Amino acid sequence: MRSAVDVLIDRIEQKANPTCAGLDTLLSFLPEGEAAKCRSLEDAAKAIFEFNARVIDALADVVPAVKIQLACYEMYGVAGMQCFRDTADYAREKGLTVIADGKRNDIGSTAGYYSSAYLGGTEVGGQLFEAFPCDFLTVNAYLGSDGLKPFISDCVRRGKGIFALAKTSNPSSAELQDREFLGGVALYSAAAELVESCGKGTEGEYGYGCAGIVAGATHPGQAAALRARHKSLFFLIPGYGAQGGSAEDAARCFDESGRGGIVNSSRGLLLAYRDKRYAGMTFAAAARAAAQAMAEDLCRAIGRKNA
Amino acid sequence: MRSAVDVLIDRIEQKANPTCAGLDTLLSFLPEGEAAKCRSLEDAAKAIFEFNARVIDALADVVPAVKIQLACYEMYGVAGMQCFRDTADYAREKGLTVIADGKRNDIGSTAGYYSSAYLGGTEVGGQLFEAFPCDFLTVNAYLGSDGLKPFISDCVRRGKGIFALAKTSNPSSAELQDREFLGGVALYSAAAELVESCGKGTEGEYGYGCAGIVAGATHPGQAAALRARHKSLFFLIPGYGAQGGSAEDAARCFDESGRGGIVNSSRGLLLAYRDKRYAGMTFAAAARAAAQAMAEDLCRAIGRKNA
Repeated sequence: MRSAVDVLIDRIEQKANPTCAGLDTLLSFLPEGEAAKCRSLEDAAKAIFEFNARVIDALADVVPAVKIQLACYEMYGVAGMQCFRDTADYAREKGLTVIADGKRNDIGSTAGYYSSAYLGGTEVGGQLFEAFPCDFLTVNAYLGSDGLKPFISDCVRRGKGIFALAKTSNPSSAELQDREFLGGVALYSAAAELVESCGKGTEGEYGYGCAGIVAGATHPGQAAALRARHKSLFFLIPGYGAQGGSAEDAARCFDESGRGGIVNSSRGLLLAYRDKRYAGMTFAAAARAAAQAMAEDLCRAIGRKNA
Repeated sequence: MRSAVDVLIDRIEQKANPTCAGLDTLLSFLPEGEAAKCRSLEDAAKAIFEFNARVIDALADVVPAVKIQLACYEMYGVAGMQCFRDTADYAREKGLTVIADGKRNDIGSTAGYYSSAYLGGTEVGGQLFEAFPCDFLTVNAYLGSDGLKPFISDCVRRGKGIFALAKTSNPSSAELQDREFLGGVALYSAAAELVESCGKGTEGEYGYGCAGIVAGATHPGQAAALRARHKSLFFLIPGYGAQGGSAEDAARCFDESGRGGIVNSSRGLLLAYRDKRYAGMTFAAAARAAAQAMAEDLCRAIGRKNA
């Protein structure tokens, strides 16, 4: 079975676009009339699915992947989780790689249940059912290797992948992640080492293991250090655009082959229709135009870096 | 508004029981005939709810709280999330404190959406809806203070609480959590410091803040060090029983007042009916007997420690 990372890289290269559309869709992101009609969590979840589906339609031949932020769906309850599942299914039907951004984590056996939910499937009556089928899940490595291995074994068995948090894009990520252990290694770097060691032996044809890391474009120095040190880690790179990371910052997460990561943008695409650069466009058309501009911006920066 | 920790402590004292029943219910925990009837995720979720409701009925006057492990419900998909909600609602109707064990974490605004889902409520059309109403949520502090503060502000506003991971009960928790930073503080201890500083000023009438920590009974030395250092932190203590922690180990998380924590047991209660000590009992009756035995065991150990 091909690894999810290999499939993702093929899609990135077919579309010449190392970006991923973040579907962190909030009700307040929808055109005003749409949100105003909603009177319940169920209404909101339905409206968000319709919005997502139009965005996916507009982006399906432009981006290789979508990242769906679970928090944005859990806040709409059971109906929100149905919307998450419907959005993931719709994106996969359109040939997109789906990254569930859940940052899940727990001790051994329980980590395995999270893995069942998003990657591995759940057995009932001798049959395997997929609760929330996705290609990748983001996880948090704070609990150590026995919290990562259940995910990795499902990744190998079913052609899936994970991204574990190393250096996150938020301002306070330094408080714990940048602190140095005795011996001089910072926590974010120790987390990356742990992920690499747990994923050893799972490298696909492009040389990346099924367990990658999250490294924010808002901290380009640390991201570049991680890139130099961990050749076999594929990076999920948040923080471009609205959060302040530039294409040059993000490009530091890519290696000499021009591969090695995928850059996420959420608000930059979903809210492009409110930007004067895309005035007069529908939200879907504006998201498409913004995704094309982002692809050009990134490809140029990666090319310049490797020139 | 009274804080969730104060309410929980009152319930612990009314029942003379500092334990919490972990509803980490798997289909395989049900009596054999029940699981065999299930043919879908929906069947499984319904059967698990019936099992949980009978356990809650049997425990409602014995334990002050239940901890519901989200992973065990997410693996059954949308129906599983409905089962989670139904279980939480049922337990709260019976006067129990509900701890959602989700170990959620994300950057600032997104942490806020998780908080909306479980603690704060979600606004639609000017009305506040509760997606998955709970009293506490477990969180992961890896992202730093801006990943904790959105939860804490909902806790203060709505009388809720969180438990952030400090020292988890699993074998590999040492890999990152026990490593010492320059200056000699271990990561688990730095995480506890961060939680205490973010929760400062939220102390209720018993002196504990709305943001507590998770400290495993399987690592009693570290747990005791945390207890001594952080008087204002209330502890959620996993690892008793099936995972190997004793009542004496767990007792080290309690302070001189005999307060300061709640000890979880999941399999020890849910699977008591398969233990020869409770032979011939229904699963509900066995869970009740095991919960009573656990309360006695813990109260004795806490009393001895403080004698």
